[in-house]
Amino acid sequence: MIKAGVVGGTGYTGVELLRLLAQHPQVSLQCITSRKEAGLAVAEMFPSLRGRVDLAFSDPATASLERCDLVFFATPNGVAMEQTPALIEAGVRVIDLAADFRLREVAVWEQWYGMRHACPQLLPSAVYGLPEVNRQAIRAARLVANPGCYPTAVQLGLLPLVEQHLVDLSHLIADAKSGVSGAGRKAEVHSLYSEAADNFKAYGVPGHRHLPEITQGLSVAAREPVGLTFVPHLTPLIRGIHATLYARLKDPGIDLQALYEARYADEPFVDVMPPGSHPETRSVRAANVCRIAVHRPQGGDTAVVLAVEDNLVKGAAGQAIQNMNLMFGLPETTGLTQLPVLP
Amino acid sequence: MIKAGVVGGTGYTGVELLRLLAQHPQVSLQCITSRKEAGLAVAEMFPSLRGRVDLAFSDPATASLERCDLVFFATPNGVAMEQTPALIEAGVRVIDLAADFRLREVAVWEQWYGMRHACPQLLPSAVYGLPEVNRQAIRAARLVANPGCYPTAVQLGLLPLVEQHLVDLSHLIADAKSGVSGAGRKAEVHSLYSEAADNFKAYGVPGHRHLPEITQGLSVAAREPVGLTFVPHLTPLIRGIHATLYARLKDPGIDLQALYEARYADEPFVDVMPPGSHPETRSVRAANVCRIAVHRPQGGDTAVVLAVEDNLVKGAAGQAIQNMNLMFGLPETTGLTQLPVLP
Amino acid sequence: MIKAGVVGGTGYTGVELLRLLAQHPQVSLQCITSRKEAGLAVAEMFPSLRGRVDLAFSDPATASLERCDLVFFATPNGVAMEQTPALIEAGVRVIDLAADFRLREVAVWEQWYGMRHACPQLLPSAVYGLPEVNRQAIRAARLVANPGCYPTAVQLGLLPLVEQHLVDLSHLIADAKSGVSGAGRKAEVHSLYSEAADNFKAYGVPGHRHLPEITQGLSVAAREPVGLTFVPHLTPLIRGIHATLYARLKDPGIDLQALYEARYADEPFVDVMPPGSHPETRSVRAANVCRIAVHRPQGGDTAVVLAVEDNLVKGAAGQAIQNMNLMFGLPETTGLTQLPVLP
Amino acid sequence: MIKAGVVGGTGYTGVELLRLLAQHPQVSLQCITSRKEAGLAVAEMFPSLRGRVDLAFSDPATASLERCDLVFFATPNGVAMEQTPALIEAGVRVIDLAADFRLREVAVWEQWYGMRHACPQLLPSAVYGLPEVNRQAIRAARLVANPGCYPTAVQLGLLPLVEQHLVDLSHLIADAKSGVSGAGRKAEVHSLYSEAADNFKAYGVPGHRHLPEITQGLSVAAREPVGLTFVPHLTPLIRGIHATLYARLKDPGIDLQALYEARYADEPFVDVMPPGSHPETRSVRAANVCRIAVHRPQGGDTAVVLAVEDNLVKGAAGQAIQNMNLMFGLPETTGLTQLPVLP
Repeated sequence: MIKAGVVGGTGYTGVELLRLLAQHPQVSLQCITSRKEAGLAVAEMFPSLRGRVDLAFSDPATASLERCDLVFFATPNGVAMEQTPALIEAGVRVIDLAADFRLREVAVWEQWYGMRHACPQLLPSAVYGLPEVNRQAIRAARLVANPGCYPTAVQLGLLPLVEQHLVDLSHLIADAKSGVSGAGRKAEVHSLYSEAADNFKAYGVPGHRHLPEITQGLSVAAREPVGLTFVPHLTPLIRGIHATLYARLKDPGIDLQALYEARYADEPFVDVMPPGSHPETRSVRAANVCRIAVHRPQGGDTAVVLAVEDNLVKGAAGQAIQNMNLMFGLPETTGLTQLPVLP
Repeated sequence: MIKAGVVGGTGYTGVELLRLLAQHPQVSLQCITSRKEAGLAVAEMFPSLRGRVDLAFSDPATASLERCDLVFFATPNGVAMEQTPALIEAGVRVIDLAADFRLREVAVWEQWYGMRHACPQLLPSAVYGLPEVNRQAIRAARLVANPGCYPTAVQLGLLPLVEQHLVDLSHLIADAKSGVSGAGRKAEVHSLYSEAADNFKAYGVPGHRHLPEITQGLSVAAREPVGLTFVPHLTPLIRGIHATLYARLKDPGIDLQALYEARYADEPFVDVMPPGSHPETRSVRAANVCRIAVHRPQGGDTAVVLAVEDNLVKGAAGQAIQNMNLMFGLPETTGLTQLPVLP
Repeated sequence: MIKAGVVGGTGYTGVELLRLLAQHPQVSLQCITSRKEAGLAVAEMFPSLRGRVDLAFSDPATASLERCDLVFFATPNGVAMEQTPALIEAGVRVIDLAADFRLREVAVWEQWYGMRHACPQLLPSAVYGLPEVNRQAIRAARLVANPGCYPTAVQLGLLPLVEQHLVDLSHLIADAKSGVSGAGRKAEVHSLYSEAADNFKAYGVPGHRHLPEITQGLSVAAREPVGLTFVPHLTPLIRGIHATLYARLKDPGIDLQALYEARYADEPFVDVMPPGSHPETRSVRAANVCRIAVHRPQGGDTAVVLAVEDNLVKGAAGQAIQNMNLMFGLPETTGLTQLPVLP
Repeated sequence: MIKAGVVGGTGYTGVELLRLLAQHPQVSLQCITSRKEAGLAVAEMFPSLRGRVDLAFSDPATASLERCDLVFFATPNGVAMEQTPALIEAGVRVIDLAADFRLREVAVWEQWYGMRHACPQLLPSAVYGLPEVNRQAIRAARLVANPGCYPTAVQLGLLPLVEQHLVDLSHLIADAKSGVSGAGRKAEVHSLYSEAADNFKAYGVPGHRHLPEITQGLSVAAREPVGLTFVPHLTPLIRGIHATLYARLKDPGIDLQALYEARYADEPFVDVMPPGSHPETRSVRAANVCRIAVHRPQGGDTAVVLAVEDNLVKGAAGQAIQNMNLMFGLPETTGLTQLPVLP
């Protein structure tokens, strides 16, 4: 049994992690910390866990995280980087679901996240936790930077085209739509029901923090810099991301379907749908899978890739557990076989 | 392994049954019938089942249902009663998720359902599948009438009061609210997104088919006729029922909390919440549980009971599997341990 | 032209008031105050008002509200009572959309609202602004307490029964459901989209602030104390309240339909629907109307009244303008003729 | 007063037309036809119109449409083309809200709409009713083809770039998102609440009927053929379209904000928002306006245009009334001054 701790269990990625960990056959949940809610039974805040998670939130100061085999950080950006060095030092492995270890270059990170990085020395050894790209490195990692929700969908959707230089790499477009849980469980006016329901809008068009993460990943895959226009939108879903991706094909004659099927043939959590498909976000609701369909409208030279995921699962907590399974030598699908909830 | 068949797998209770059966460790799914969709891969209609349900819909005429150990009917009212006699004859056990076998009296059934009953001779041996009331009978049953969604929530909410005659039995009130999936997957204008979203209404106030089912169950529990005003409402949820129940206490001094906790102490799928609670439908989303809280506002003589369930799970497919587990001697919770999906 | 000011224009009742006032032919909007947003163009916060409301939020300290003919308070409870005495003194009329002047008894108010009342001396002259009850008094009022959203729907729904003592006055039941905008535009976790969407729950069952307001109004109508069980629920609507009201009839033979039609025959904003109707909240969306239907299920002695309103219009801003029209001698429907938005 | 008739008043564009016409000061509504609902009071089907629209649906065969000054067709594609020749002959003006007269070339129309055109001879005189392009022609028109919902938003968003050849005209991208009312009030499974709520998907990627309409309009504006990739999506809104438009700038140094402000300076129903804006669909809910914002992310050569409209108003019924105002010499904004409903 893996002794696991969760730092910051009061947000949506936190409670989703608890839902999945509580059903994982090889995990023993040791502690869930929350400075603000210390002492409160977890199931009192999240009645969905009644009878299944008996822990109370514990104070981070006294949580003895160093006795865990693995600690998940489901905290705001900037928290994990403060505590990770001591944990790594103590032999604990760490998966950060926030952004602290996602970018290779400290200067870029500090520019986009607006703070000083607390442990730049750990960045070189942090592994970007996208198993479909870094499976071997994740197996050996002591520190995994779990990818962002948008970056997971956009990278999985574009990788087959980018890795083989089949498209104009300087003008990729990612038009992405996210459910509101992606904004977290913070009390903010723009996330209120009466603001976000029956409403649709773009946001962050001038620049979103996931942009450098995506371009970093795609540039590594392409072995050269790529140019990406990334436009995120907020849509009235609780869960779900839909990425609509546009790229100009160098050779319009290519068999996109075969390309994608071959690339993801052995991936347990990427589903390339049949030709002509339009994946729906609900088809992955609450499950750890990214479904992809590829189109070439009117037989032109523009590839249109549609990719969906549950932002809290394959885009966060599920992928974190997938990474945990790899790090601890378990079958990659352990504890991740729940079927999507539809309708 | 239980060899199970599903008749009518294209509706919401059907696909929910498939989701749960596909994850059940003791079930081997033999066939799923649909006259209209025969030949279509189930996963093509419901991509959420891709890779997990490999069957295609089969024609009812050629489905060899008699080779199953158990057949679930997830069909419109009136279908199960046509096919059940032959199956029972062939030694197959049957769970009907529709209403064909729920009412004891043929005349009442025919009045509310507007058709002639095809096999009244089976009614006496049909067991009403509410395990919290009929557990022993279900274990021995060959034919189980799975309760309706409203009746499950309303009965579980009122039983402790009614069984012991603690309230005015002639003036019970059930104000119930249901998500739209309760109306099924039929193409009807009133169930359209643009009709049901951002809208709330009562319906069927003059009389709803679940009324005789509820009064039958409560009258059995009370061992005398009860009087119930039942007002169902449609609310913009996909899944979920919330029943708000009102009853006048004969003795306002009674400890309602203790009463309910005692009644349901050994029930794996009924959760009596702590005093002062307000159960939310999402706290049971996609899981087989009914959560209940009891109140006595301003210390008066009116008991207010709040009961929530997922209409497709504890209100339909989950309860059907709970019944199956009982009928086949399995632990009652087998295959029903999924945690609710929140948010 | 009525020179009108709005104190607290950043909440939902505030912006709704602005929407309606901007379209009112007899109102000249003088100022909209907000301590926090002073200087910000109103249309920058609410782009729906672009080109139609050119004012910026002004600092309450310098707003010269005393130059207005009328000031609306769309503020949290406790603000209006601080500023109203000086305005009244200066000859300005006041409509408070919050609760400061709704309860006759200071002690009751202070108990439910948890603060000391700042101007109890004004309570006797404050008129409760439900035109269907107090039309004449409103015409002459200098200070109007605009009713709460729930109290408007519940009182309009029960008045015909209560005024004539046709029901058991000691055991009235109001099962009310509100959209999320009723909770205001404050950033609070329980009002987040991911908390309130696809979810239904009761709240405040032990006691809600609108309870004493409703019982006060109904007791006045009955000329004796009434007993009410009031259970509010939160439902995934932006706007809308649906009250389902239960009362035991003394004489089940009464013609409820005729009773209601007679009571509201001359009311421009109360619509008694045809027998058998089920009013929908969307049928009043964005319009100043309360629609009511009456039922007596199964011919029993329980009356079931269904009443719907838009909580921001007939339940708040629209009713405030209706009151303004009365106070300033305008036709009562002036500026309130917008048709509901459906779908 | 304009004597107006509506053919097909039971769909969403029909009821929206009724809502707006009932509030229009210069229109006298003569008849509303529906073959299926003949005899039914309009307000019985749409209670939002109670007290304001007193007509019943009349049988098309006996409706005497030829006595109207103007007939609106809010019918499925293929109906208007059957009845329009006789009406035009009788001196009645016609606005078709469906697609029968939108495409110039009969062959293209017949290919996309899968039927034979009934009156190709009228196509040359039909005016495409986008006032921002064809205002003069609309004033003189006897037959107006009201634009589709997507085409309105996409064309208004791209026109300034296309008219002046400022972008690569062969690779325009329109990623558009529509609320579910755009699919009409037909009873179809994919439009059910439980299918469309909490779900997001693309559809029609291989080809959507609005594609030829948009390319026709943009090609006229460009005076040369344009190439467009158009991907529509369904999002859980009742009303609203959000178009996210991508085009590669020939000269990245151009002042996009100034370009758009100049192009739409005199347009009463196009609102160019301040730099950096992200228009929300709710900011135009129930109002006849298209709001646009322009971006050039990271200072690159990709222009990103965001355009929102209410698909039932500026995308259908509101625009039809705008066209009517032009055709009858009224001020263009008559009857169209309702403020958007927010929240």
